[in-house]
Amino acid sequence: MFILAAAGTAAFSNVFPISIAIVILLAIVALSYEQTIHAYPGGGGAYIVARDNLGELPAQIAGAALLTDYILTVAVSISSGVAQIVSAFPTLFDYRAVLAVGLVMFVMLVNLRGVKESGMTFALPTYFFIVMMSITVGLGVFRYFAGSLGIVVNPPEMDIIHTVTAVTPFLILHAFSSGTAALTGVEAISNGITAFKEPRSRNAGITLIWMAVILGILFLGISFLASQIHAIPSETETVISQLARTIYGSHEVLYLGLIAATTVILIMATNTSFADFPRLSALLAVDGFLPRQMAFKGSRLVFSYGIVALSIISSLLVVVFNASVNALIPLYAIGVFMSFTLSQAGMARRWWKIGHLKPGKEIKERGSTLRNEKRWEVKMVINGFGAICTLVVMLVFAITKFSDGAWVVLILIPLIVVGFSSIHMHYRGLARRLSLENYAAMPRIARHRVILPLSGVHRGTLAALRYATSLSDDVTAVNISMDPADTEKLKAKWDDWGEGVRLVILESPYRTLLEPLLDYIEEIASQRQPNEIITIVVPQFVPKRTIHNLLHTNTAFWLRAALLFKPGIVITDVPYQVD
Amino acid sequence: MFILAAAGTAAFSNVFPISIAIVILLAIVALSYEQTIHAYPGGGGAYIVARDNLGELPAQIAGAALLTDYILTVAVSISSGVAQIVSAFPTLFDYRAVLAVGLVMFVMLVNLRGVKESGMTFALPTYFFIVMMSITVGLGVFRYFAGSLGIVVNPPEMDIIHTVTAVTPFLILHAFSSGTAALTGVEAISNGITAFKEPRSRNAGITLIWMAVILGILFLGISFLASQIHAIPSETETVISQLARTIYGSHEVLYLGLIAATTVILIMATNTSFADFPRLSALLAVDGFLPRQMAFKGSRLVFSYGIVALSIISSLLVVVFNASVNALIPLYAIGVFMSFTLSQAGMARRWWKIGHLKPGKEIKERGSTLRNEKRWEVKMVINGFGAICTLVVMLVFAITKFSDGAWVVLILIPLIVVGFSSIHMHYRGLARRLSLENYAAMPRIARHRVILPLSGVHRGTLAALRYATSLSDDVTAVNISMDPADTEKLKAKWDDWGEGVRLVILESPYRTLLEPLLDYIEEIASQRQPNEIITIVVPQFVPKRTIHNLLHTNTAFWLRAALLFKPGIVITDVPYQVD
Repeated sequence: MFILAAAGTAAFSNVFPISIAIVILLAIVALSYEQTIHAYPGGGGAYIVARDNLGELPAQIAGAALLTDYILTVAVSISSGVAQIVSAFPTLFDYRAVLAVGLVMFVMLVNLRGVKESGMTFALPTYFFIVMMSITVGLGVFRYFAGSLGIVVNPPEMDIIHTVTAVTPFLILHAFSSGTAALTGVEAISNGITAFKEPRSRNAGITLIWMAVILGILFLGISFLASQIHAIPSETETVISQLARTIYGSHEVLYLGLIAATTVILIMATNTSFADFPRLSALLAVDGFLPRQMAFKGSRLVFSYGIVALSIISSLLVVVFNASVNALIPLYAIGVFMSFTLSQAGMARRWWKIGHLKPGKEIKERGSTLRNEKRWEVKMVINGFGAICTLVVMLVFAITKFSDGAWVVLILIPLIVVGFSSIHMHYRGLARRLSLENYAAMPRIARHRVILPLSGVHRGTLAALRYATSLSDDVTAVNISMDPADTEKLKAKWDDWGEGVRLVILESPYRTLLEPLLDYIEEIASQRQPNEIITIVVPQFVPKRTIHNLLHTNTAFWLRAALLFKPGIVITDVPYQVD
Repeated sequence: MFILAAAGTAAFSNVFPISIAIVILLAIVALSYEQTIHAYPGGGGAYIVARDNLGELPAQIAGAALLTDYILTVAVSISSGVAQIVSAFPTLFDYRAVLAVGLVMFVMLVNLRGVKESGMTFALPTYFFIVMMSITVGLGVFRYFAGSLGIVVNPPEMDIIHTVTAVTPFLILHAFSSGTAALTGVEAISNGITAFKEPRSRNAGITLIWMAVILGILFLGISFLASQIHAIPSETETVISQLARTIYGSHEVLYLGLIAATTVILIMATNTSFADFPRLSALLAVDGFLPRQMAFKGSRLVFSYGIVALSIISSLLVVVFNASVNALIPLYAIGVFMSFTLSQAGMARRWWKIGHLKPGKEIKERGSTLRNEKRWEVKMVINGFGAICTLVVMLVFAITKFSDGAWVVLILIPLIVVGFSSIHMHYRGLARRLSLENYAAMPRIARHRVILPLSGVHRGTLAALRYATSLSDDVTAVNISMDPADTEKLKAKWDDWGEGVRLVILESPYRTLLEPLLDYIEEIASQRQPNEIITIVVPQFVPKRTIHNLLHTNTAFWLRAALLFKPGIVITDVPYQVD
């Protein structure tokens, strides 16, 4: 609508036809994905389908496109939700970015606590939204036929700067590609099959078709009514808000009901990303394309790293784009259609392989099993046609939206793929260097020397001393002396309690703590014989309250940081719980 | 000037008399401190003088007041420097806070690298400033007598909101207390005696007197000329800038020279705080009032913690007050005069003690030695009179500036003192609980059990295994299994390389990593016999590049965090340097 509005009211009559074209595309993609759902009962996201059928690079591209889109989904959904809020409460307009980041953090915390994917929490707002939106569209259509719809009162000012005058095919395509953002829910169902009840594939398939039908009807209804009432696309008031106040007139409650339902549904829309981004990151991490820790769940049984990463990156985006939906949208759909295309192309390839399978033979792939199926040609054509359609849309998008921001994504996705590859190379290189092939077992440890740094003689030190003497007979206690009087006292105490262990005093006239100790350790280390190992046993108090740790030198931590790269030095802290 | 300007031009004639009163106060304080310098040749800050002569609480109050003031000095000096910059370049006005924080960070980095306190770096800008300022004042006075001085052209708009109409004594005192901020350099010399050449006390004393004389003359000159040219105190242009352009007229270069000199001297003025805040923090830390690690120097021989703390807190202040000198000044001088008062009262007390010493007897205190001295009564009167004067100023300040922001400081200083006390209590409580009095030595370790978590069998794991078997004969390797196929491979490899060590497989169907391991460790720990200790040996790769650490699970770190509060469990990571 934005784009057509820029071309003047004449172009506005194109809103409805373009919407119909978008709905047809939705139908094609939904049909094609319905097949994916049945082929991949364990979850058939674009990454898995591309990996199994097209190879590593297409899979990585699909993965990068999807990660980008999950991030953008969060940024766009939250920004849209905030746009609804500021439509109803214009005084909040200046705080859009703050509101949006706050909402992202809220959704992050909810997800870190762990949410049930199904259940009333999600169903209720969804039904509420569908009901409210159906009432709005139904009443609007009724008023249209009754001739009492009218046009929007006090429309917001149009805030487009570059007005285009001619309705060119480019313009139409531009508008079309903007509208296709409505299709992005399709991939989510395909990815989340395991969340459905058994028979999963069947239920997911039915859901997909229902979703497409409801979405199609509401989308057509809204775009038809919006063009009838001459709604003005604007940053300050959403089209939904203009539509609702035109249809409901003075019925404030219904207006606020629709705005609230839309806001909630948009915020909940991010939850798809909060479920799928960490899940996909974990898949990529298991395959060695992302840091390995992303593959593990935390104590709340959620992939915490993924959730936090998604929240931070999408908050940054929201801040950079000041929560402007119109600035974020151009970045959005290109990745969706890239993954659509790869996924459907992978499916087409899969049908081809199935068609050329020997009768009765089965091939087990990672995500699915290939076995003979009837009418594989029809299915291949459906997926293939879907792939071609989405490829065309992607190209249209890349060309028409290039200067609006699509170039960012076209640079970002290759960069992410390069990132995947370099992480993969690191892990492979590491595995090679750690490999036990042609590896001669290390000789036993010949000598084990233990160094025990002390700041005083007390119960904590004695616990560490007891541990140190259990490791080896060769223990040296070391004290950094800053004040001669204190050192004398320490020596006297050590004579009583030190169990005869040698005590070395290191002078530190400038009150440095770590440096004299490090010098001493390095001197000892340089005089080592082969297969001699040094353990530094650091006494460590554990205060009852964590905050009190700020009052203690974390010597073990700093030693570890300083000595990490020296082979054959092990640092152990012996905790002493002060009760 | 601000305050008098608010009362209208009639009140402005009071600027010069008030300045004379301030200079007299400066003379009194300088004389009084000259005595401190000789009594404390090792550095006589208010904290040390109060601690030795007045006791713990006055010392803590002096310490809190001084720390507050060092922070405010940085905030005020940098903000004043930025005010000079934006006077010359008004387009930068909106970026005051950013500029100021940038400058604080710059000074912080310079100080973390370590700076020489003496030397040309500091002398050159100081001389340059004194020369430029003397030229300006000299020329201004000359022009005044020649009758060609005139008044300031295009003065900035007055930006005071509450205009006062009557010249009340309160107003005069208010203006006086604002002006006294000029005295704050006195404490710095007294604190930094050790930086002077021998004979230190003598040189520091001479410097103090010279500083007071130069400061007094320039201060009087500037305030006299400012009132003559009708300079308008303003946030947008400093009085110095108005004065300089009135005196120099079209001589742009001289104008910019003075602005540059003033800016540089103001930025360098923070260096006193950057030297003294960490030094005082270290003193307080040694006495157990601040975290102990603040007492140690880093590898660059600077107190890094203190420098970083000072920079962060003062940057926060600058941001909160948007680099406004006039908003920060009211917070400022109250702490200075509080420490002046305590220090001089301490000195007076010291003379009293000296006066009542038996002939020939000496008492060694921590910072100075008490021995008989002639004319102790005169000296006591000088210090006592100084203390009374600064106490009166402090009270005037607290009352007249209370609502302008002085209340913040009057709440803050007691809070800091409470903080000191609670830190002190923590250390004392800890020392008591760690004390060896009535302590029966712990029995020897009866059994040492070693747990070795593995994610795979490779060179890194074998290095950890070698270390583990050197600690004890009772080693158990543990693997968290997420994929049965991987586990089978690992078992087979362990049979070849595991040196017969027992391998336990823990199932983790939900892909959690730490939780099954923690459950296992806690189960083992709960079945322990007395004096049995458990060591967890974690293999740890050390990648060549630190950034690659992001690609590895830091298992030891998380285990340490989770098991910190369990007694008798030691966590050791055995680093394996991947080359």
